[in-house]
Amino acid sequence: MRAFPNPFQAHTHRQPSRKLRIAVVGAGYWGPNLARNLQASPDWDLVAICDLDLERARKLAAAVGEIPAVESLDEVLDTFDVDAVAIATPARTHHGTVMTALRAGKHVLVEKPLADSRAHGLEMVAEAEANGLVLMADHTYCYTPAVLKMQELVQSGSLGEILFVDSTRINLGLVQPDVNVFWDLAPHDLSILDFVLPGGLNPAEVSAFGADPLGTGRDCVGHLNFRLPNDATAHVHVNWLSPTKIRQMVIGGSLRTLVWDDLNPQQRLSVYDRGVSLDRQPKSAGEKASTNISYRLGDTWSPALPEREALSQVVAELAYCIRNGQEARTGGASGLRVLSVLEAVTRSLTQDGQPAAVAGAELAEEMEGVR
Amino acid sequence: MRAFPNPFQAHTHRQPSRKLRIAVVGAGYWGPNLARNLQASPDWDLVAICDLDLERARKLAAAVGEIPAVESLDEVLDTFDVDAVAIATPARTHHGTVMTALRAGKHVLVEKPLADSRAHGLEMVAEAEANGLVLMADHTYCYTPAVLKMQELVQSGSLGEILFVDSTRINLGLVQPDVNVFWDLAPHDLSILDFVLPGGLNPAEVSAFGADPLGTGRDCVGHLNFRLPNDATAHVHVNWLSPTKIRQMVIGGSLRTLVWDDLNPQQRLSVYDRGVSLDRQPKSAGEKASTNISYRLGDTWSPALPEREALSQVVAELAYCIRNGQEARTGGASGLRVLSVLEAVTRSLTQDGQPAAVAGAELAEEMEGVR
Amino acid sequence: MRAFPNPFQAHTHRQPSRKLRIAVVGAGYWGPNLARNLQASPDWDLVAICDLDLERARKLAAAVGEIPAVESLDEVLDTFDVDAVAIATPARTHHGTVMTALRAGKHVLVEKPLADSRAHGLEMVAEAEANGLVLMADHTYCYTPAVLKMQELVQSGSLGEILFVDSTRINLGLVQPDVNVFWDLAPHDLSILDFVLPGGLNPAEVSAFGADPLGTGRDCVGHLNFRLPNDATAHVHVNWLSPTKIRQMVIGGSLRTLVWDDLNPQQRLSVYDRGVSLDRQPKSAGEKASTNISYRLGDTWSPALPEREALSQVVAELAYCIRNGQEARTGGASGLRVLSVLEAVTRSLTQDGQPAAVAGAELAEEMEGVR
Amino acid sequence: MRAFPNPFQAHTHRQPSRKLRIAVVGAGYWGPNLARNLQASPDWDLVAICDLDLERARKLAAAVGEIPAVESLDEVLDTFDVDAVAIATPARTHHGTVMTALRAGKHVLVEKPLADSRAHGLEMVAEAEANGLVLMADHTYCYTPAVLKMQELVQSGSLGEILFVDSTRINLGLVQPDVNVFWDLAPHDLSILDFVLPGGLNPAEVSAFGADPLGTGRDCVGHLNFRLPNDATAHVHVNWLSPTKIRQMVIGGSLRTLVWDDLNPQQRLSVYDRGVSLDRQPKSAGEKASTNISYRLGDTWSPALPEREALSQVVAELAYCIRNGQEARTGGASGLRVLSVLEAVTRSLTQDGQPAAVAGAELAEEMEGVR
Repeated sequence: MRAFPNPFQAHTHRQPSRKLRIAVVGAGYWGPNLARNLQASPDWDLVAICDLDLERARKLAAAVGEIPAVESLDEVLDTFDVDAVAIATPARTHHGTVMTALRAGKHVLVEKPLADSRAHGLEMVAEAEANGLVLMADHTYCYTPAVLKMQELVQSGSLGEILFVDSTRINLGLVQPDVNVFWDLAPHDLSILDFVLPGGLNPAEVSAFGADPLGTGRDCVGHLNFRLPNDATAHVHVNWLSPTKIRQMVIGGSLRTLVWDDLNPQQRLSVYDRGVSLDRQPKSAGEKASTNISYRLGDTWSPALPEREALSQVVAELAYCIRNGQEARTGGASGLRVLSVLEAVTRSLTQDGQPAAVAGAELAEEMEGVR
Repeated sequence: MRAFPNPFQAHTHRQPSRKLRIAVVGAGYWGPNLARNLQASPDWDLVAICDLDLERARKLAAAVGEIPAVESLDEVLDTFDVDAVAIATPARTHHGTVMTALRAGKHVLVEKPLADSRAHGLEMVAEAEANGLVLMADHTYCYTPAVLKMQELVQSGSLGEILFVDSTRINLGLVQPDVNVFWDLAPHDLSILDFVLPGGLNPAEVSAFGADPLGTGRDCVGHLNFRLPNDATAHVHVNWLSPTKIRQMVIGGSLRTLVWDDLNPQQRLSVYDRGVSLDRQPKSAGEKASTNISYRLGDTWSPALPEREALSQVVAELAYCIRNGQEARTGGASGLRVLSVLEAVTRSLTQDGQPAAVAGAELAEEMEGVR
Repeated sequence: MRAFPNPFQAHTHRQPSRKLRIAVVGAGYWGPNLARNLQASPDWDLVAICDLDLERARKLAAAVGEIPAVESLDEVLDTFDVDAVAIATPARTHHGTVMTALRAGKHVLVEKPLADSRAHGLEMVAEAEANGLVLMADHTYCYTPAVLKMQELVQSGSLGEILFVDSTRINLGLVQPDVNVFWDLAPHDLSILDFVLPGGLNPAEVSAFGADPLGTGRDCVGHLNFRLPNDATAHVHVNWLSPTKIRQMVIGGSLRTLVWDDLNPQQRLSVYDRGVSLDRQPKSAGEKASTNISYRLGDTWSPALPEREALSQVVAELAYCIRNGQEARTGGASGLRVLSVLEAVTRSLTQDGQPAAVAGAELAEEMEGVR
Repeated sequence: MRAFPNPFQAHTHRQPSRKLRIAVVGAGYWGPNLARNLQASPDWDLVAICDLDLERARKLAAAVGEIPAVESLDEVLDTFDVDAVAIATPARTHHGTVMTALRAGKHVLVEKPLADSRAHGLEMVAEAEANGLVLMADHTYCYTPAVLKMQELVQSGSLGEILFVDSTRINLGLVQPDVNVFWDLAPHDLSILDFVLPGGLNPAEVSAFGADPLGTGRDCVGHLNFRLPNDATAHVHVNWLSPTKIRQMVIGGSLRTLVWDDLNPQQRLSVYDRGVSLDRQPKSAGEKASTNISYRLGDTWSPALPEREALSQVVAELAYCIRNGQEARTGGASGLRVLSVLEAVTRSLTQDGQPAAVAGAELAEEMEGVR
């Protein structure tokens, strides 16, 4: 089990010596959420909003308080003495923007996915490491009360051995102009699994099936399968064409099984004390070994979850990691593991669903090479 | 679209000239249901119950009325002048029992799956055809009001082009002693798809992922993917380890999408007039072709379904097919298509999920070879 | 808290000295269920089936084993040396049939409701008591695993003080030819409350609203309200005209609240550790007393329930009560309390919903008068 | 059927000659929603925000744009040439504030309930009428797409005759400091019924049951029953102590039944073509009249509803009514009918649930008296 900064509980703060200074880059869809949470945080001084569209930057800057709006990251770096930048620009710009910030010695929070390719991600992680800076991916789901509780239940052994994972994220969703349904939706499921599973997200290979039945030029329906330790299996279903909306993850264990239904606010998490048990009887002399299968039909339990905005925890963890020189639970390494799986998905799709190897076991060596 | 005997409505009967005579072979789990429905049918005279365990045969024979109980199929064939036999014995015995009945000139109804291997199934189908006899698989779901309505909706074009199929059949189920979860549960999904889809079940290849995380010696969790025409895709999830029970099939179409939730008696079928549309604009001279994506959020409709026991329709269709020399909607050819996919599943599992070819395109030639 | 024969657990038996002898009177809708459970019970010898329609009696007698069928209760009493009779005839015949059996010294199990009027019920209870015989109403729901668990939770204090009860039993139901929806459906809710509530069913008065909007000649929609101790309140909604089927009871307590959803087999009982708390602060000198209201949002828990047929427990309890000279949890007194409320409902309906007094506080004296 | 300004469709506007001028009074919980919708409306110029707490007024004024903030309604009336005021202050202040505005010749939109007593409401309605001004209650639910569709379905006769209404609004809700659960929640249900039912909300009398089992000093659980035309019946359940949240209304009709489940965004409205039918056969000479009861089990239909903020429709209707001299669908008369029922509830509670007469049939005369 990996060590995270106080992963099972909300970040609460006593007397931060001084506030850290940050600028938000990108005032489009996600930027306002970042700005609002940074503004409300006891850890942060939000000192500027930056957007190529200066008018958009100004509007956001006015909405969150009277703070300066600027047009370029360079201007941010030249003018304001910031500790960090929070980047909410399109994925294809992450590499350039993040590298600039890191080279200027700034800590970085960047919207998911970390980058638009694993190679880009590797460079970013190496640069952060070389400069002793925090690089954190904004995998927001990992900071929701439901996912925190899931991580706690899985890692404490309450579920027993993991037997299977099944994640469904389907919706009549916006067909994206430049990414397929895997790159659009699966980062959520994959980053959650990376956080929740005892060994993180480390499959050797991945098989993916995609379909573009409308002829949009990119897959709109996707299934992805990979192995977990001990012959367990994980399946993720992402779909932009479903008339019904489902966001559900099942984690089956040898002791208990957990169901997360994110669209049921009255019972988001259920823990079922039900399952199949296999009792192997050692054979005595002259006897055949026998196996007894038994069924457990115990209680169901649904833990209460606090109401708390996940993004407030994201910005708290960013500050914590900077102050303590720690890797965030959704740090660069985690972002890279997600990218590695997505790239294997892309390869598997081109070879008709045959399993494609996931880069990463050799991560350390590669990163050496990059430096 | 294939022609079936009146597939969209209940079999109703006017004055059958004479009742057909039948014996039930196998008085275990399913035999009593067959016997009860045959006894209640206006088409059939149930003349004998047969089971190796004569006591069991006698008990069933007494329960359905005072009819003879015998110990072997040979005795049935020697003693009673039957038109047909209904076989409800274990799958591994289907081939032997069915071949005996067919060679004696009897029509046959046989429990699912048709046989324990495709080769066995091919021999049975060839034998039936050679003798001009009806061979029918008891794929009972295809005779439920919900599946009949689904077939009607799909084949009438109400859904438009099929875009994707997703079928889930999971449960804390009995781990079977001799078959894996694919052979136990997927015949239901596959026979339904064979009946419902316009072209029947004819994938070129299948990819399967199975897991046996408890070490039972056979897969307990399974996912299977295959292509449908026009880059549509089908996915089937079967699982013996789920704490919750789900029996659901989604058929997404370009016009409407259908959801069958078999465990919701108050709204078993829902038809959503929701979806994504792609309107291709032809390019004028000097213009770029453009594609507009639009979203449809229309009404939902849940058709009323009659309450009717599916098995009563099975025995009615058997009689209808015998009298009219027709192939049943779940006849031997359908049973074979299911077996072909299951055998490809088995092959894909042995090659780590790589797609395995489904035998069948060359079915006619093979059957020639068998004769 | 009243004492019942082992009310919280299934009846299990060790070596009953001898089987008790019983006949079933009435082979219509409910009789076959009684006969089947009596036949399967280790406590009982089912010795005869009785029905005015002798053919119907014979059919049932054959179905449950080769036992005699007779036409009249007199014939049962003359011919067979029974210990008890189980009566499943229409409610208007209960009084006559039960009185005959009791006068012949037989214990009686009688279908709900106990009688068609409170006066009739009083006579029956008095007669049983005078002769030292068991008279038991077949309020089957009180023997289901869910209701047993509810009783356990309420009576053990797990819910705290009862604050409110809300019971809904609605359906597109068969409009009955001779009773209104209150007398048809509310006996279920009332007998359950009598069993579950700490003080049983003892309201001082009842208000009822009924409606017959179709002009059937009897109320098809009904609401009934009464007070529980400590200004708590109970409401029951019964309805034959609802397009959806709901069978749900909520019991709100000061510590926890219980929801029983009988049509949700996957989560029939839920116990919510949520609620409102009132903390009264004692006033110090010179201060105003203050009341703090706080909200509790704790876990939800759904206990596993065994799968067990309630009627098998009914016949076990009948035997237990006879052998041990005990009153059944749904004995005559309980049946009378239900009738008392139903008669008050009828009175309240005739006086435009004004509260009508419930007879019963003075039960003991009345029964003296009867004797 | 009453005539409303274009009640079945969204207000859409072409070229309003000039914008109307309005101020918002009250910057607490609801005021910001009013201000935001007025600011976004093509019909309105929001010219000032008013609150006794000037700081709160300033904050809201800044958030919606750079507009003036003032401390008192008098200041609004003296300084700004407004056409109307929108009042979002506590209910006990409605009468005074509204009367001031009306006397100054301003149209008024006032938060629900219209006033804290029927007598106050009557004065307000009379004043508005005497001055030819619009007085509109902000019964926001009546402007939601779901309630608009319900009104259309009921009033077009799609449901047939109304047979029963059952409304449930329960929640672990905030126990209010000065009103009971009836006055807090039932205005929603009552104003919806007033809008949806063909004859509006006009019961002759009302019976109410309340309970204060926690001893908070006011009822926390309430049931209210009244008759509708043709022996139909309405029941409303309001509850602050329920651990689960339900907002559901069932309107049963002779042809179809409608269920509104406001917390199910995927299927908010369902129309069931199910029910009981009574066919009366006229008697021929010498025959008994007979009544046949039959059951209809037809399809279910769930109409698509637009996503639209109800409050934007409220402010559009206010402008429409001012410009065209019309009564709003939730005008003063509607607000009065709601108050009349609530006052009868209060009386019924004091007389132990006995039906209490609802003032209002004689409304016209009373209003004469007031003038």
